[in-house]
Amino acid sequence: MSIKEEMDTHQDDDFDGLAAVEMEVQHPADAAETIEGLDIADQVKFIKQLPIKDAAASIAEMDDLDQQALIANLNRGLGARILGQMAPDDATDLLEGLDDELRKALLSRVPAEDRAELKTLLTFDPDTAGGVMNTEVVILDQDLNADQAIAKIREEVEDKEISYYAYLTDDKDHLVGVVSLRDVLLAKRGAPLKELIKTQSLISVGYNIDKEEVAHLIAHYNLLALPVVDFGNRLLGVITVDDVIDIIHEEASEDMQTMVGAGADETTDSTVVFSVKKRLPWLIINVINSALAAYVVHLYDATIAAMAILAALMHVVSNQAGNTGQQALAVMIRQLAMEKFDRRKAWVAVLRELRIGMINGLLIALMVLAAIFMFTGDFKLAACMGIALIFDMIIGAFSGAAIPLVLKEIGRDPAQASSIFLTTITDAIGFWSFLGLAGWMLL
Amino acid sequence: MSIKEEMDTHQDDDFDGLAAVEMEVQHPADAAETIEGLDIADQVKFIKQLPIKDAAASIAEMDDLDQQALIANLNRGLGARILGQMAPDDATDLLEGLDDELRKALLSRVPAEDRAELKTLLTFDPDTAGGVMNTEVVILDQDLNADQAIAKIREEVEDKEISYYAYLTDDKDHLVGVVSLRDVLLAKRGAPLKELIKTQSLISVGYNIDKEEVAHLIAHYNLLALPVVDFGNRLLGVITVDDVIDIIHEEASEDMQTMVGAGADETTDSTVVFSVKKRLPWLIINVINSALAAYVVHLYDATIAAMAILAALMHVVSNQAGNTGQQALAVMIRQLAMEKFDRRKAWVAVLRELRIGMINGLLIALMVLAAIFMFTGDFKLAACMGIALIFDMIIGAFSGAAIPLVLKEIGRDPAQASSIFLTTITDAIGFWSFLGLAGWMLL
Repeated sequence: MSIKEEMDTHQDDDFDGLAAVEMEVQHPADAAETIEGLDIADQVKFIKQLPIKDAAASIAEMDDLDQQALIANLNRGLGARILGQMAPDDATDLLEGLDDELRKALLSRVPAEDRAELKTLLTFDPDTAGGVMNTEVVILDQDLNADQAIAKIREEVEDKEISYYAYLTDDKDHLVGVVSLRDVLLAKRGAPLKELIKTQSLISVGYNIDKEEVAHLIAHYNLLALPVVDFGNRLLGVITVDDVIDIIHEEASEDMQTMVGAGADETTDSTVVFSVKKRLPWLIINVINSALAAYVVHLYDATIAAMAILAALMHVVSNQAGNTGQQALAVMIRQLAMEKFDRRKAWVAVLRELRIGMINGLLIALMVLAAIFMFTGDFKLAACMGIALIFDMIIGAFSGAAIPLVLKEIGRDPAQASSIFLTTITDAIGFWSFLGLAGWMLL
Repeated sequence: MSIKEEMDTHQDDDFDGLAAVEMEVQHPADAAETIEGLDIADQVKFIKQLPIKDAAASIAEMDDLDQQALIANLNRGLGARILGQMAPDDATDLLEGLDDELRKALLSRVPAEDRAELKTLLTFDPDTAGGVMNTEVVILDQDLNADQAIAKIREEVEDKEISYYAYLTDDKDHLVGVVSLRDVLLAKRGAPLKELIKTQSLISVGYNIDKEEVAHLIAHYNLLALPVVDFGNRLLGVITVDDVIDIIHEEASEDMQTMVGAGADETTDSTVVFSVKKRLPWLIINVINSALAAYVVHLYDATIAAMAILAALMHVVSNQAGNTGQQALAVMIRQLAMEKFDRRKAWVAVLRELRIGMINGLLIALMVLAAIFMFTGDFKLAACMGIALIFDMIIGAFSGAAIPLVLKEIGRDPAQASSIFLTTITDAIGFWSFLGLAGWMLL
């Protein structure tokens, strides 16, 4: 794909929406898409004819599964050389997905200085700051002045990935400050680095902090990079904003997918077997849960046999409460995803959902009551529907808002299968309240 | 809140996860949270005692509704001075949310040079590149050399928000290239800027491109900033990566919330009335849709009256197919959100979901068939359930995957109410297939 195509879908009449784009060399992100479109034999050919640096940059931009398949099909020597050229965080991600044997074979062929670093990075949990950080950092002694710092930067900068901050350490390698490279470069000659330290704050995270928390911090403080330290406040690496964008995307997919019992890491590129394995356990739980709701209905077999229309109408009650609950659920999960958890605020939000549920419940109940009365002329039946609806919709609103919080409080992912739990509650309570009421009032 | 608190929730035994944090001055993002926690009178007092620059920076970090309420409660002169100090894109966002009278009153008091700029920015659609761009850009004439460029940058940089690229224009203000500030600053003395232009590509967007498309481009190419141009390729402004993080967050919330008929822009801070207005129309559509499914059941009143257990079991069928469909739906919506739309790939993904639905459908159907037979000893009833289940789960998988695509093809938001449409299909078809089959096989 080209930028040209990307933009063509957006053109309108007076302006084609596309600015001049000159592509002398294909951008690695585009090369990655080109490669993914080829079959594996052509992928290997394509990679072999690229300069090693470009091959590494392009592979780094590919999807995880495609990356892994490609590297497995290259000869080990070339694979190792490519890994050596990749940013250490990207190389680590790739290695993490490979089977043990292949990973060892490749690592043993990576140049010694890169190998030690990759081995260290592989020891971090991939879901933590340590697992996503990059170790290519510009580190400056805090006692340098700007000119000495610039000389050091010029020396090092060729090897490093783009970085816009330099980190200052004391003689025990403790992180003591951060300066922007731009400030160093624009500083008066001879100015001590200490004068350039950003006054507001030095924000850093421990290596074992969850990567979603890292994403929150970078988003909250509008940082371009966040330093990662060990328990002794020694600088280990840095997490950059482009990695955070990937984390935010992953997080959104996880919430949306796990909510209904699909896999957190499923994509449309996953194999069918992978997706079946992820989803089937939740479908089984769902079938057990809906058996519970079915059992509630079964208790009222006599009522239904006497008045079969109830079977049709009970479905309207449960469905409506389920939808009400899902609306509350979606808004709550997003709050938990985007903001720092604040228990008081979260429960205030549950109260808010309860109010919304009461208002919507009342309005929908009145509407349905009127419609049923109009069609059937049976006021008692209409009243049963109305009462069951408002009751179940309030239960739905409360449950939808509370389920993610309860899951969070017991240390689970707030989204996981929340929609499945919600539906069980709204179905069972909807059937029970409507059929019970109808049996009592109508028969 | 402080970083200390932020981190304390994550400590474990051997490492408290928090690096040393020194906060001499509160970060604007934290000041914003402090302000949001105060009542409006105290908010005004707090803002009045801050230096005007800090006041502007803090207000820029507040939530939209809180921002608007606060600025409405400041006297117009102070409000206008604060707006003048804010980054133009932030000031525009704030002004956009105010009522016409207040906006005009504030704009008339903003210093003349800022006023013209804000008025121009207000003309752009807030959902497009023009609506989110920042106009504080470092622009360099392409014929300068590195030293001349550095002199120009030193002169301008005080006024500009953080920027890491400078843009090169020709004598007609056309955008011709981009250089990183770092490359300029590290370049050999006297080196012509043209030599520093990044060779790979110049990626820019027209001002009328959708902001989600902008987010895709920045994420895809790992850019820190993306220039925005007019139809004549003249540079208008730049969109930075921190704005993109907000767009990605908004986008994820929109998809998750509109899928079930909640408002795209609802948060837990929205008023109850706002949320009721957004959700009620979809709840009404949902009630109409479920009336359709109820009508299908009503057609089989005689069947149900003869065998009331069917009313309990039909619910298991529809619920299971609904869940299957939602899993497909979630994965498809995320694909559409994260990747450039590729019609062929999208329909291949529908086929993939169909396969998953067939496998999961078969396994669940066999499981349920066995369970029903075990409990009731009625093989025909068990077979009806099994057949209806596999049939409706396949329909669910196909519909869940296809609905977002169909919505997209007809120019609608692929997520909007997709879950509601899906449930209508899986309910109606589940009831029809199960009750129809049961009526034919059992009675």
